[in-house]
Parts: sequence; structure tokens; C-alpha cells
Amino acid sequence: MKDLREKTLSSKRVYEGRILNLRVDQVLLPNGKESGREVVEFSEAVTIVAVTEDKKVLLVTQYRYPVSEVLLEAPAGKMDPRENPVACARRELQEETGYTAGSLEKICEFYTTPGFTNELMHVFLARDLTPGEQSPDEDEFVQVEAVPLQDAIAMIYNGKIRDGKTIAGLLAAYNMLKE
Amino acid sequence: MKDLREKTLSSKRVYEGRILNLRVDQVLLPNGKESGREVVEFSEAVTIVAVTEDKKVLLVTQYRYPVSEVLLEAPAGKMDPRENPVACARRELQEETGYTAGSLEKICEFYTTPGFTNELMHVFLARDLTPGEQSPDEDEFVQVEAVPLQDAIAMIYNGKIRDGKTIAGLLAAYNMLKE
Repeated sequence: MKDLREKTLSSKRVYEGRILNLRVDQVLLPNGKESGREVVEFSEAVTIVAVTEDKKVLLVTQYRYPVSEVLLEAPAGKMDPRENPVACARRELQEETGYTAGSLEKICEFYTTPGFTNELMHVFLARDLTPGEQSPDEDEFVQVEAVPLQDAIAMIYNGKIRDGKTIAGLLAAYNMLKE
Repeated sequence: MKDLREKTLSSKRVYEGRILNLRVDQVLLPNGKESGREVVEFSEAVTIVAVTEDKKVLLVTQYRYPVSEVLLEAPAGKMDPRENPVACARRELQEETGYTAGSLEKICEFYTTPGFTNELMHVFLARDLTPGEQSPDEDEFVQVEAVPLQDAIAMIYNGKIRDGKTIAGLLAAYNMLKE
């Protein structure tokens, strides 16, 4: 296989922010030419597909400012510094839904959009759930609902679920649980 | 349902670039407090799950600079200004794989990561494929392979496919084709 890598020639941090940084690099392409690369630096994150005994999945309704829409999503969140994915999944599930999971199983992981950011998403299947009190972040407003897994899958195809990590996570869990 | 929307108080474009812009807004939260929101403005895009007569899926190998890895992905790309999703899907499939599709069917759409960008991904199932010549962009280096769909699904779970849109698209197509 040809070497497809691109070599960094220079790198400039153009923005440092609250949840992300932006870097603009100059790179050497495999054909010897140069090009610019814009990179959004973001922390790793987790998504939790939490499935109840009666095959319902816990979803949260949340306003997403960048898209100006209220979306129905799987519980998710950024990993804190030095937090591991499992600990983050337990924390986010509890904060956003109130539930704690007796069983937490890694399903898969993926880059959300590797063309312009390094955000890495770890996806977990949570089962053996015990309800409790939500404790969302101060500036987080989420409403929880339990949707039959089969209905949630249909909502991917009819456009009612329109969040990438939720679609990937729901289908990956559904496919796994069927086997 | 409570009103979860956030109202824009001020908006500042902090970066205008080649493939993305960055905006930092000040917003009013549902609880009356203020917060900052960082928004990466990105164009809409398409992903094509192209399945051959013998149930193989066309995947492309591509170096992704933001994650410093060579990834195996479904063909995909940004919509040009005034281009519609179907036209973009036809163009990107041809450019990246050389194939043209007799049948192109929308499967679903999703925001890739609505917490910080407005990128909207349209996912298509392409069938009735005719091979031809690749014509990638000048700074795009992709290698095509045809992978049995069943094997591609297994690669999601064993970590060999680690791209979000590819995982969502493959599973959505797989689930649809089985029914």
C-alpha cells in the first residue's frame, strides 16, 4: 500500500476555547505538494445505549445550539481530564438520566468526523439499570424518555432521530442484541 | 414540554477558513443564565454505502490528518454550494471509487456532532453499480476496496472500522437490506 500520510510542516493554534481549540497546519501531501489542514481539537467522549429489562432504550431530549434544534439523543458527554471511558459512561448516564448500570459493555468506538476533528467517541451498552435522581451540569437541560428499542430503530429511518452517535450506537446495540 | 431553546445574545466570527468557520456566541439559557457556545460552521455532506450485486460494500482507505490515522471509510464528501444531496452522492461516489450507481436511495440523515458543529450528513444506499475510473480531488489520496458487507459489519465491533458516518451508514444499510 502506498504511504498516504501527510507530514506536518507548520502548526498554528488560532483559537483556544471552552470546549474546543482550533489549529491550522500546513502539511506535505504524498504527491509532494503542500496543503492547509484545519483541525478542531476536542476531548474524547462517550455515548451510552442504556437498555432496560423490557427492551426500552433511555433517550434524552436536548436543545443543540449549533443546529438550532431540539434533538433526541442517547446520553453522552465529554471525558474529564484523566477520566477513563468506563468511568465517564457511568457518570454521564447517572447525570443525564439518573440511572446506574449494573453492566457496562464497550460496543465500539469511532471518530465523529475525522475530516476536521480528533473527537473520539466510545460507545457503551448499559444494562441491569437502577433508577435514581438526575444531576445534570448547571448549563445542561435534558429530558429523559424510555423508548422501545424497535421504535427507536424506526425513528432513524423516519428522521425523528438525527444525531450521528445515537444512530451508530442504537444500530450497533440492536444488531448485537439480536444475535 | 419545557422550552429548552437558547437565545443568541451576541455572535462573533473568530475564524474563517478553507473548509470551516468558527463562531463564538453568547446565549441566554432556559434558566435565565448566560453561557458561551462555540460553533464550527461546516457545509452539509453525504456518505454513500455502495453495495454490489454480490453483497460487497465499497470502502476507501484514506489518511485523516486530524486523527493521524489511515481510516477505512465509506465514500463521502462535502456538498458544493447549490449542489443537492443526490447530485453530491453521485459525484463523490464516482470521484472516489470510479463507480456510478443505477439506484441511489436516501437511508437517513444526521448531525455528525451537534454539540459543536452544524455539519449535516445525508446517507445514501447505492446499488446497480457500474465500474469506471476514479477522479479524486487534487489533494485527495484514496484507495478503494470491496469488502463483504457481513465482514464490514464485524469490523465495526473489532475496531477495524473507526469512522462514525461509516459505522452509522453500514449498520443502517445492513439492517434495511436484511428486512
